[in-house]
Amino acid sequence: MRKRKRKRKMEGALWLLVVVVLAVVLAPAESAGDVKIWPMPASVSSGNKRLHLSKDFELLTQGTGYNDASGILKDGFNRMLAVVNNGHVVDGNFSDKSSLLSGLHALQYGIDESYKLMVPSPENQAYAHLEANTVFGALHGLQTFSQLCHFNYKSRVIEVHMSPWTITDQPRFSYRGLLIDTSRHYLPLPVIKNVIDSMTYAKLNTSFVPDMVVINCCSYAQKRGINVMAELDVPGHALSWRVGYPALWPSNYCQQPLDVSNEFTFQVIDGILSDFSKIFKFKFVHLGGDKVNTSCWTDTPCISKWLKKHHMNESQAYQYFVLRAQNIALSHGYEIVNWEETFNNFGNKLGRKTVVHNWLRGGVAQQVVASGLRCIVSNQDKWYLDHLDTAWQEFYMNEPFANITNSKQQKLVIGGEVCMWDEHIDGSDIEQTIWPRAAAAAERLWTPYDKLANDASEVTGRLAYFRCLLNQRGVAAAPLSGPGRVAPF
Amino acid sequence: MRKRKRKRKMEGALWLLVVVVLAVVLAPAESAGDVKIWPMPASVSSGNKRLHLSKDFELLTQGTGYNDASGILKDGFNRMLAVVNNGHVVDGNFSDKSSLLSGLHALQYGIDESYKLMVPSPENQAYAHLEANTVFGALHGLQTFSQLCHFNYKSRVIEVHMSPWTITDQPRFSYRGLLIDTSRHYLPLPVIKNVIDSMTYAKLNTSFVPDMVVINCCSYAQKRGINVMAELDVPGHALSWRVGYPALWPSNYCQQPLDVSNEFTFQVIDGILSDFSKIFKFKFVHLGGDKVNTSCWTDTPCISKWLKKHHMNESQAYQYFVLRAQNIALSHGYEIVNWEETFNNFGNKLGRKTVVHNWLRGGVAQQVVASGLRCIVSNQDKWYLDHLDTAWQEFYMNEPFANITNSKQQKLVIGGEVCMWDEHIDGSDIEQTIWPRAAAAAERLWTPYDKLANDASEVTGRLAYFRCLLNQRGVAAAPLSGPGRVAPF
Repeated sequence: MRKRKRKRKMEGALWLLVVVVLAVVLAPAESAGDVKIWPMPASVSSGNKRLHLSKDFELLTQGTGYNDASGILKDGFNRMLAVVNNGHVVDGNFSDKSSLLSGLHALQYGIDESYKLMVPSPENQAYAHLEANTVFGALHGLQTFSQLCHFNYKSRVIEVHMSPWTITDQPRFSYRGLLIDTSRHYLPLPVIKNVIDSMTYAKLNTSFVPDMVVINCCSYAQKRGINVMAELDVPGHALSWRVGYPALWPSNYCQQPLDVSNEFTFQVIDGILSDFSKIFKFKFVHLGGDKVNTSCWTDTPCISKWLKKHHMNESQAYQYFVLRAQNIALSHGYEIVNWEETFNNFGNKLGRKTVVHNWLRGGVAQQVVASGLRCIVSNQDKWYLDHLDTAWQEFYMNEPFANITNSKQQKLVIGGEVCMWDEHIDGSDIEQTIWPRAAAAAERLWTPYDKLANDASEVTGRLAYFRCLLNQRGVAAAPLSGPGRVAPF
Repeated sequence: MRKRKRKRKMEGALWLLVVVVLAVVLAPAESAGDVKIWPMPASVSSGNKRLHLSKDFELLTQGTGYNDASGILKDGFNRMLAVVNNGHVVDGNFSDKSSLLSGLHALQYGIDESYKLMVPSPENQAYAHLEANTVFGALHGLQTFSQLCHFNYKSRVIEVHMSPWTITDQPRFSYRGLLIDTSRHYLPLPVIKNVIDSMTYAKLNTSFVPDMVVINCCSYAQKRGINVMAELDVPGHALSWRVGYPALWPSNYCQQPLDVSNEFTFQVIDGILSDFSKIFKFKFVHLGGDKVNTSCWTDTPCISKWLKKHHMNESQAYQYFVLRAQNIALSHGYEIVNWEETFNNFGNKLGRKTVVHNWLRGGVAQQVVASGLRCIVSNQDKWYLDHLDTAWQEFYMNEPFANITNSKQQKLVIGGEVCMWDEHIDGSDIEQTIWPRAAAAAERLWTPYDKLANDASEVTGRLAYFRCLLNQRGVAAAPLSGPGRVAPF
């Protein structure tokens, strides 16, 4: 009976066992401390025992049904070990084996990111037990495991305190994003990679990069459980298209938005989205649609003539452009994200596969989901990282379900995104502008509503601990006290 | 004849050959651009050809007399390749061999850091030729080589422009330091390691860390050609000693400086320096001696009594303490660095092996070397990195030989050090507070006087390029415009 149950588990789920030594109780009556995990898991129980990791702690895959051909889990395990070891000279003479089973899923929006972690495994005290339905759930489990580990400078071993642990966890929202702007200042590749690595520590899962430099990072990010969403912001924000396609500007004197009257405009959009679809495998593409000033269309004689011929005013032409671009994206298999201006202007005309990306103010999500469309929350007063005067407490308290009580409507809020626009950002200050404030939002997006603090001050200690962890891992997260990117004092 | 000459070279010097492909001239009439190397080498000549690196560019040691047992050069070569590749997907189908010869020297103050780099080698166009008397000279040569390499995004190969290159180089000063304070804010190990790596890019060679956390970094630094100087700052700055040695405070009410009347004080100093000598192999130890307020000695009855008995006033007791600590350090084989307060108070009594560390103001070096002692320049108005309002131009223009014209006296200025005191520094902002300003001082300390710019504005473009290089290598160097640690705009 027991055996059969186990077999079922192996077929249905990815699970792995990670070595820890057999319950070496250093402080048998140690009082259970605070749980320091960030973001807080859905369910946690801990004890008062202290374990430590064997020196040759490792992940074994031989003899199991799991084929980690792309090395995602092995790499994730090695990264976890690296951040846990963190350059320390670790002692310890214990050794044991670990084992990993089951299949691999491709990363995609809405993938099962849940995991269950038991330290030690109830069935074998010399192991930790990590169970997940997908490799990406397992990666989250490894991140949580890394946060249970502490280097003891005296004994020079890595310890797990407050054992036994049982953690059952899954995200509240399936879209937990960080926008990384690379258009105004050059961001070198290693900097973007460091940001992607740091996102995994806070269990964020989507990086939205409105620039094509990120092509280089796609596979790097995917292997870490981070989807990359590309943006083609039309018809505005397209000044740079001139380099390749001068004919797409209304005229040399009036350069934005793209020429709505020119069929070639849509041929180029089609070509770019066709290229995108080969590189960006994420379900969504971002088509922008924000900040469109259409006066260039009426000021340019040939376009103005075209508008009259087609009985369109500026506003109708803007709608025509956005909807036509949406159809092109749909034809390439994408679902669409558009900035909220499109919804504010002609929400009822937007394709039903549209996700409206809120940014101008709070309260928009409420209207979007009431209209039956999906929404990503990024209201700039709370979740724009370039607003340095927005403190982490405000990031933490920004609730995507504000005033949305209907559970069907709540499901349409797919998540949120903190935005790092780079007017004053480059490789020299991006990390401390993002962290720790993005972590505050990450917990809001990961942890079940009823486990979130009602008052941000309740989590100050745990977030300060996470900030210290980021520093130890080489991420230049700023101190908690004061506004964004403040120097310590 | 030719063969014998070669043999002599093999005996006398370390030399290595590094692969580049045979002069693939992409732009045969390319005009020679600006030399972008930072710090500027002693002697440079370049051409107008463009080469590119083979994909399997590598360093071979087999079949040579050189035994890189500790892997220093191989590691240095691999780091150089990593920063040159920098995460790019490099194409290219050329391959060749490289070769490395001769012996290994231990890193120490005053070691020969010179090198000669020819790209390509005049004897074999498929190789670059790097010649050095020590492995640490060779590491500098590899750093320079890395700065000749550029990734071409179109062809996806790494190119060397302006070939052929002949660079003969050696530092102007043998002590080129960066003080990394770790006493006021915790600096995680990975952060310190990143700072050490970034020092090598600017050819700095000494990190002075007034804290024992650095023990972990000693071997890491040495392998990169960075000496680590430890500090035991006595008799002041010793509040924390109380933890281990409460008896060393004058009293519970008066806690600094250390009790001059207590023989146990000097026994503890002896013990610590004995331990230091096993860990810190650098020729110098820093004994501090700054900011001593001796009122605690006269305010504490038993010490006051002891002073009277020994016919000492406060000032004489301060001198007695410093000189006795110097003698203890000498007995452990160290030469001594003391802050300038010791010189300002009793310069003529200091041991002749003392190096006076200037910090209070400019003009001190002049007095120190006139008295026959050696000096390290760190005048706070120009070379304190925590002074955010000191711009890089002032760092660049601070001349250690100011008003020192006698060549014998000039030899006593062993170098300089930029200081990163950490009242407002931790892992979140240390890199952008250090860079690019430390690089400006690094060129002052490396490059021959007659090759330095008379006006800092002449090197703005080259330093901006180096700052960009630091960013590409993941170092959060701040922009050049504005004061220290300024955000880009």
